[in-house]
Amino acid sequence: MIVVIGGGPAGRLGAIRLAHAGKEVLLLEKKKIGGQCLHHGCMVVCALSDAARWIRSGEQLQQLGIASSTPAISFSTLIKEMQKIQGQIEAVLDEETRQAGVEIQYGVEGRCEGEALYVDGEQVPAEAGIIATGSRPIVLDIPGRERPGVITPHTLGSLETLPLRLTIIGGGIMSAEFAYAFSAFGSEVTIIARSGFLRTLDPLLRRGARTDLEGVIIRENTPVTAIERSGGLLSVRGRDDEELSEAEVVLMASGLRPNAECARGLRKGDLGEIVVDDHLRTSVPGIYAAGDVAGPPYLTPVARMEGMIAADNILGKERQMDYRAIPQSISLSRDFMFCGEPSEDTAAIGSPAPAGPGSFWAVPSRNTGTARLMIQGESGELEGVRLIAPGGSLIGAYLSALIRRGCTVTELEDLIEVHPNTDGILPLIRYMGEWNKKRKRS
Amino acid sequence: MIVVIGGGPAGRLGAIRLAHAGKEVLLLEKKKIGGQCLHHGCMVVCALSDAARWIRSGEQLQQLGIASSTPAISFSTLIKEMQKIQGQIEAVLDEETRQAGVEIQYGVEGRCEGEALYVDGEQVPAEAGIIATGSRPIVLDIPGRERPGVITPHTLGSLETLPLRLTIIGGGIMSAEFAYAFSAFGSEVTIIARSGFLRTLDPLLRRGARTDLEGVIIRENTPVTAIERSGGLLSVRGRDDEELSEAEVVLMASGLRPNAECARGLRKGDLGEIVVDDHLRTSVPGIYAAGDVAGPPYLTPVARMEGMIAADNILGKERQMDYRAIPQSISLSRDFMFCGEPSEDTAAIGSPAPAGPGSFWAVPSRNTGTARLMIQGESGELEGVRLIAPGGSLIGAYLSALIRRGCTVTELEDLIEVHPNTDGILPLIRYMGEWNKKRKRS
Repeated sequence: MIVVIGGGPAGRLGAIRLAHAGKEVLLLEKKKIGGQCLHHGCMVVCALSDAARWIRSGEQLQQLGIASSTPAISFSTLIKEMQKIQGQIEAVLDEETRQAGVEIQYGVEGRCEGEALYVDGEQVPAEAGIIATGSRPIVLDIPGRERPGVITPHTLGSLETLPLRLTIIGGGIMSAEFAYAFSAFGSEVTIIARSGFLRTLDPLLRRGARTDLEGVIIRENTPVTAIERSGGLLSVRGRDDEELSEAEVVLMASGLRPNAECARGLRKGDLGEIVVDDHLRTSVPGIYAAGDVAGPPYLTPVARMEGMIAADNILGKERQMDYRAIPQSISLSRDFMFCGEPSEDTAAIGSPAPAGPGSFWAVPSRNTGTARLMIQGESGELEGVRLIAPGGSLIGAYLSALIRRGCTVTELEDLIEVHPNTDGILPLIRYMGEWNKKRKRS
Repeated sequence: MIVVIGGGPAGRLGAIRLAHAGKEVLLLEKKKIGGQCLHHGCMVVCALSDAARWIRSGEQLQQLGIASSTPAISFSTLIKEMQKIQGQIEAVLDEETRQAGVEIQYGVEGRCEGEALYVDGEQVPAEAGIIATGSRPIVLDIPGRERPGVITPHTLGSLETLPLRLTIIGGGIMSAEFAYAFSAFGSEVTIIARSGFLRTLDPLLRRGARTDLEGVIIRENTPVTAIERSGGLLSVRGRDDEELSEAEVVLMASGLRPNAECARGLRKGDLGEIVVDDHLRTSVPGIYAAGDVAGPPYLTPVARMEGMIAADNILGKERQMDYRAIPQSISLSRDFMFCGEPSEDTAAIGSPAPAGPGSFWAVPSRNTGTARLMIQGESGELEGVRLIAPGGSLIGAYLSALIRRGCTVTELEDLIEVHPNTDGILPLIRYMGEWNKKRKRS
């Protein structure tokens, strides 16, 4: 038997793969199947952002005189309906996992002590184990962090009404996504970032995010020292007890911490994560870890892939995880997709993204999106892309695959797209293909 | 000097490519730059469909109780604003073309008689020519075809109000797209198709289109014999003078005919198209044809590529057009993308598309889209895809490239996507990769 602890993307996909290979698999899930991704992360952002984008598109049509008005949305119904849909997806995942032949035990605590695996304190005989217990939001260690109204993405579903004012502590991707959505719903949003807002991002994307977050107050390089109660509001305080913002709700989106406490006797890293090699092996033979519990990047597709690769290695397939050029995206008015990094010898080119589905009515505002392509100057190999466009994240997987394969722009010149589209990368590939050929000739 | 007749996608891209290579290029455009694509085709559908999708999304949110109402849109303002945007794009194309070094002459008639090229009847010395005069809507040869209220996609911009009832003659892609949009705006739409509705399409996509066109009356295998005036309405008649529909407006979306009349002394085909080989050479040395004037498929990206390949061949680069696995898409509630065809030994698999951006709120209606992947049974090479999903057309270019390159599902198993997304093809690639490996082992 193989024991998998945690039913999020990593554990679930790993378990299914093992079951497909004929193994007896026991999946332990303390709460609900689907992990943070379904219950507190990706799908929540997707639900909020789909509604927020609809509102912003309506405002755009209204400004042009095409739509008569932009209707209000009921935030409490949105949250309720979102949770229903999450429940429906949860049921699908449960069924899919069982049908693959995985035994699921809910409400039990899985634990590992070195090679020994326990279910609710009782040791179970297992030939191998995968620890896939995910991560949880970091709650800043400041006075007032437990006050009513201070929430994390894990407790966002408890909001019963739309806050008039919302303060978001954190300057990362989740912070930007929540700010976009709540701002579209009508909240006054303040972001407080300890260092820079979206500081690890390409400046092209950072500038685009600022445009999408017009009206949101963004305070950078601003540590939070306390959250106090002031009248009916939460007052967020900074250095020298300065009041940074007042709001009904304070959302902590300050990063994630691996849920590695259930594993003992194996090597851990500085973030508390379980240390694994590129086969997803921990320091203890037969015990693997996959997904957020093994540290960043905290991304669903990476967790899924790690789960499957851990499973493949348990099955003796000797498979390594490839962390190069992992595509990522931020959901604002459109997808902000980025993949790959420039090298020392990078040639880069950018242009506005074309007007297409989802951006036709943005032409008058001259904001149809933007694209940037980076190639290795000598070889012409694709190195990286940055794309702001509706549906931009959809092409991330394919561009990532092309970058990983060392594909050159010249090889890709014969790409035929579907028209109209918003993929600004394609014309850049063509242009740079020509440029690269010319350069080689001269 | 090289003469290019026609400033649509084929002519414009061919002219730019020649100019980039240092050639003197004269581009002749009778009316406006951008061709049917900008003025009567792709961009019009994009404008209408972006607004229609917004309305349908609003209805979905309203059904769930999230949106308070779905606002009305002003059709006349939509048309007016669309035309403004078309003008803006036109100006961009004009500037881009001139900046590349192309000389554009507007309002003149280009003509070719064998090797001789004429501008407004006057012969011009040219080393080569590209005929890229596009196509125009077929107007059925029936009584009443010239009555007021009978329009084609070329005269759609003349509509001043939304018709209460709209009859569309034709059962192809454009017909489906216009039906979706006008139906969302509130018109009662009847489609009359001489043979089957979307009959050349995969049944999976055809069924999906029917779902999106709920409420639209679709009459198949129904030839139209006349359009009569009856009260204030247009009565469309069929066999035995049966009344098929009554409507304020009748839109003929009955296919396209190549604009090849301006070319004489070179070989033409059954549709009146200029016959070309895969180098885009006509039967006359030095004269090339590209885009719709050279016959189907009537697609902007194909026209663009043909224009560029004609230019490359004029430049002595010996380049062939590759017509395999051209991706296409239909804009309904989401993109209906298809690419590639099954062979005799095809293994295929399908599944619902995942809930993601643009389809999260469709989960309760169990209509998040669908995906189908076809591989060559022996080799595991990708052969074809069918995808109904928001943004599905965006990934068409990449899947087409993978199919053309003979990529196998096993090679693509390491694709890492961005989550959440609606690309149902990715999990199928993974699943079939595993399946294919197992099959090979046994």
